[in-house]
Amino acid sequence: MALEAAEQVVTSDDAATAVSFATEPSQYLHWHLSIDGAVATIAMDVDEQRGLRPGYAMKLNSYDLGVDIELHDAVQRLRFEHPEVGCVVITSARDRCFSAGANIGMLAQATHPWKVNFCKFTNETRLEIEDASANSGQTYIAAVNGAAAGGGYELALACEEILMIDDGSTAVSLPEVPLLAVLPATGGLTRLGDKRHVRRDLADVFVTKSEGVKAPAAVRWGLADAAIPRGRFEESVRARAAARAARSSRRRPARGVALEPLVAGGDDDRIAYEHVRAEFDRAAGVATIIVSGPRDEAPKDADEARDLGSRYWPLAVARELDDLILRLRTNELTLGTWLVKTVGDMDRVLAHDRFLLEHRDADWFVNEVVLLIKRVYKRLDVTSRSLLASIEPGACFGGLLLELAFACDQQYMLDGTMEEGEQAPVIVMSEANLGVYPMGNALSRLESRFFGRSPEFAAARAATSVPLDAEAASALGLVTFAPDAIDWEDELRIAVEQRAAFSPDALTAMEANLRFAGPETMETKIFGRLTAWQNWVFSRPNATGSAGALRRYGSGQRAALSKERV
Amino acid sequence: MALEAAEQVVTSDDAATAVSFATEPSQYLHWHLSIDGAVATIAMDVDEQRGLRPGYAMKLNSYDLGVDIELHDAVQRLRFEHPEVGCVVITSARDRCFSAGANIGMLAQATHPWKVNFCKFTNETRLEIEDASANSGQTYIAAVNGAAAGGGYELALACEEILMIDDGSTAVSLPEVPLLAVLPATGGLTRLGDKRHVRRDLADVFVTKSEGVKAPAAVRWGLADAAIPRGRFEESVRARAAARAARSSRRRPARGVALEPLVAGGDDDRIAYEHVRAEFDRAAGVATIIVSGPRDEAPKDADEARDLGSRYWPLAVARELDDLILRLRTNELTLGTWLVKTVGDMDRVLAHDRFLLEHRDADWFVNEVVLLIKRVYKRLDVTSRSLLASIEPGACFGGLLLELAFACDQQYMLDGTMEEGEQAPVIVMSEANLGVYPMGNALSRLESRFFGRSPEFAAARAATSVPLDAEAASALGLVTFAPDAIDWEDELRIAVEQRAAFSPDALTAMEANLRFAGPETMETKIFGRLTAWQNWVFSRPNATGSAGALRRYGSGQRAALSKERV
Repeated sequence: MALEAAEQVVTSDDAATAVSFATEPSQYLHWHLSIDGAVATIAMDVDEQRGLRPGYAMKLNSYDLGVDIELHDAVQRLRFEHPEVGCVVITSARDRCFSAGANIGMLAQATHPWKVNFCKFTNETRLEIEDASANSGQTYIAAVNGAAAGGGYELALACEEILMIDDGSTAVSLPEVPLLAVLPATGGLTRLGDKRHVRRDLADVFVTKSEGVKAPAAVRWGLADAAIPRGRFEESVRARAAARAARSSRRRPARGVALEPLVAGGDDDRIAYEHVRAEFDRAAGVATIIVSGPRDEAPKDADEARDLGSRYWPLAVARELDDLILRLRTNELTLGTWLVKTVGDMDRVLAHDRFLLEHRDADWFVNEVVLLIKRVYKRLDVTSRSLLASIEPGACFGGLLLELAFACDQQYMLDGTMEEGEQAPVIVMSEANLGVYPMGNALSRLESRFFGRSPEFAAARAATSVPLDAEAASALGLVTFAPDAIDWEDELRIAVEQRAAFSPDALTAMEANLRFAGPETMETKIFGRLTAWQNWVFSRPNATGSAGALRRYGSGQRAALSKERV
Repeated sequence: MALEAAEQVVTSDDAATAVSFATEPSQYLHWHLSIDGAVATIAMDVDEQRGLRPGYAMKLNSYDLGVDIELHDAVQRLRFEHPEVGCVVITSARDRCFSAGANIGMLAQATHPWKVNFCKFTNETRLEIEDASANSGQTYIAAVNGAAAGGGYELALACEEILMIDDGSTAVSLPEVPLLAVLPATGGLTRLGDKRHVRRDLADVFVTKSEGVKAPAAVRWGLADAAIPRGRFEESVRARAAARAARSSRRRPARGVALEPLVAGGDDDRIAYEHVRAEFDRAAGVATIIVSGPRDEAPKDADEARDLGSRYWPLAVARELDDLILRLRTNELTLGTWLVKTVGDMDRVLAHDRFLLEHRDADWFVNEVVLLIKRVYKRLDVTSRSLLASIEPGACFGGLLLELAFACDQQYMLDGTMEEGEQAPVIVMSEANLGVYPMGNALSRLESRFFGRSPEFAAARAATSVPLDAEAASALGLVTFAPDAIDWEDELRIAVEQRAAFSPDALTAMEANLRFAGPETMETKIFGRLTAWQNWVFSRPNATGSAGALRRYGSGQRAALSKERV
């Protein structure tokens, strides 16, 4: 198996080049990343000719998935590579144009799955920005130095503060409904009310007003935080960013940790990183994902962990798994079931797990690793694939890796062994399973699992640190099925075959509902309520039909709209 | 304008007979309602030949909108006409068949709007059942005396207790995903986790298992509360219902209040009840809804209110408005904007408003009226029409009627008068606007409006009881726009024209997001997350395409499914 750069491996089903998520600042086509002391600036400067796919020009800082992949990379890198940064300014390198949002030509030509995947990834990236502000002491502020429309304004909404040029012409707008017959669905409709607390009726006026709202009214309505004359804008942004950075919770460490390129090998039937690999059974529609436990002992202290840098096992695993999830989601639409396994030494996993918990409060790097693991598991929670955990002899589902099993829709655990001399598999819970890696609904996966069942939750919780075999795990409700050696292969095969026989759409919708019992947060509302409505709208002729608004935009022809309310 | 029975008036756009929601027990085709002391029984016995539309046979107690209209009527009537009832048993009059759920033939032939409307109404009826259990001292229990599949089991889920025959064959199931490529979307996917607290992985197993789960496992998994042998079933249900009734909070009044048939007149361009009328401008796509204030003073005591019965103004208005909403939603799809007005004496409205608040705790009937008003306004909140309030001279938007304006997406209020001698309009808040009629998210509309804006909420709240003119109302954020006489007609005309120019789908999806800021409840999750996903699934070829599962079900042909995950 040849080892090559991650971006050149997968073959996509639709015969187009597979999408790679690997990049780094020197390769950015669409953003300028600069750092000045404790303030970083990410300036959007979209190269309109360098769309990820042919067929559209990305004028006016409009964006496609390629643009957002770079943004995601920048947000991630700043956290690890530039711990000295306490505030990040998102702005535009263009004059009088912040961003026109998602590119319409791209949306008009894209398939339904492409649109949905694109929106999901942009939503995740906006949430990463908010996670950095909330948990990493890197507060994002938007310097809206020109028109911010649609996804452009939604990017600003993901920041904690929106500074806007007040020049009599610059406006923020969400023109999707009036112009395109789709929704502002990169969080816009949710953040207006839930984050910015824009009054419901004003929000309604705003999103039906294609020309948008200029700075003074934007501030009055709560759409922006400050309206600043053009002449004083740069200086004000600088001052504001410096003030934010000064208040940062970051402890200003001397140096960051470089995120080295991931190395992946593979062919049409597999992808293999160092600790994570995936094997495809295309006929069955299954990807088997195998995560390896650590080869090395846990570091003796945080310095050693930082010295390991991106070779530090928990960081490497998280990055590899994240990349794999993104690539499979985007490039492998017909692998509808992911069978998740682990292999490795349980004690070593638990030692690493303990290390993370012990050092995350005191060390910024360990904390970032924990936060990354959290985000990767959240990505799994909103992945539209059936997730089945297979817990077999040799597995190491403990602590942070057990969380991987809890993220699955069902857990199969072998009761006993398949062959003589094997050890029967066990699982081991740790504090990591009690809220360190919460879901988007702010509950741990264990709390979600036992939502409304306090006695069962308490019983499970009491078994923390105890190696649990299939019988014990099953009795505590921690696994779904515990077949013995005689039934194991048949049961798992039937489970996978059944899943493959169902409608992928029904499964996607069902899983999106069942995975989030109980309370909702802004985050779950974005992926649940808002995204679902957008998916629906994307499939409606008024938007994406040949005479729909998305297709006809810019053609000079008005969309032909059915007037029936549904 | 001729006055005739409500069911014979509206002409539907799609040339089929308009749907009427008026019925009463002697007219029921599909249910037997019987009352034995404090226990009522609603037994399902669907007449398979009497579908609301031609083209399908409703075998195995499967149902269509007509069946659900009768159920809605029964639930409503029991609260008003049978206050002596403390427990309601929902069961089947058939042997070994509880209900097969929504009729597949009906779903397969229905248009997209019909399916969506049908699901919304069934969802509302299930929530009415839960409202009766929670707030009216009429607890619903399901006596599952035979197979309960899909919507059949979802009906049981709406009850507070599920008793199930344990005979080795009776099963509960949600086979929508495996058999039909759609969702259990009458609350099923939400109630499994949020109400029944079924473990997430078991819920996943359950909804992918077309044959369902028999009584013992159903109880173990939390899908049912008791498994009872056939021989003891009726007796056990009787005992359980009697025990529930004995614990009811109802004070066992001697007699109920009859809900007399609504009387409606109209023609193709209007519907007129006694206190509520609607006028249609089909070219503009607008229905103007005008609610009249009370002609009479408030009753002197609860006895007098009860004696008035269904002529009691708040009850009459609520019933008429409810019927109008349902008819417009179902029969008038192209009237996309509803312009809401009131006309009448403000003091009299406020006197009635006060009366409701003063007597609702002590009198069961007044309480039922308050609860009905709450439900009607909730129906408005989930109505897929743009709602604009127009507050003009002569209006009486006070207390419970002001709530109608707050349910709208935008409020227009005339600043001053149009003609000499007129009184400029005012609005008056009361305690009624502070939580008596909560939205599905459990917040008052005022709290939702000012979500996250405590100072503004406090300022508005402090203006309770004060008549507020347009300037004052606008300053407090209680209305959106306050044009004067010069601008009034133009502004309102443009607002309505703009709305009519937008994609109805985008508006529906947008409003479903903006109307519910902040917290979510099981109820808002059902209408937001679950319904949106179902709308999407209904529009996918895998379900409703000519080779989709819904179309091919029962044909002997397997559905042709695209295997792409979205």
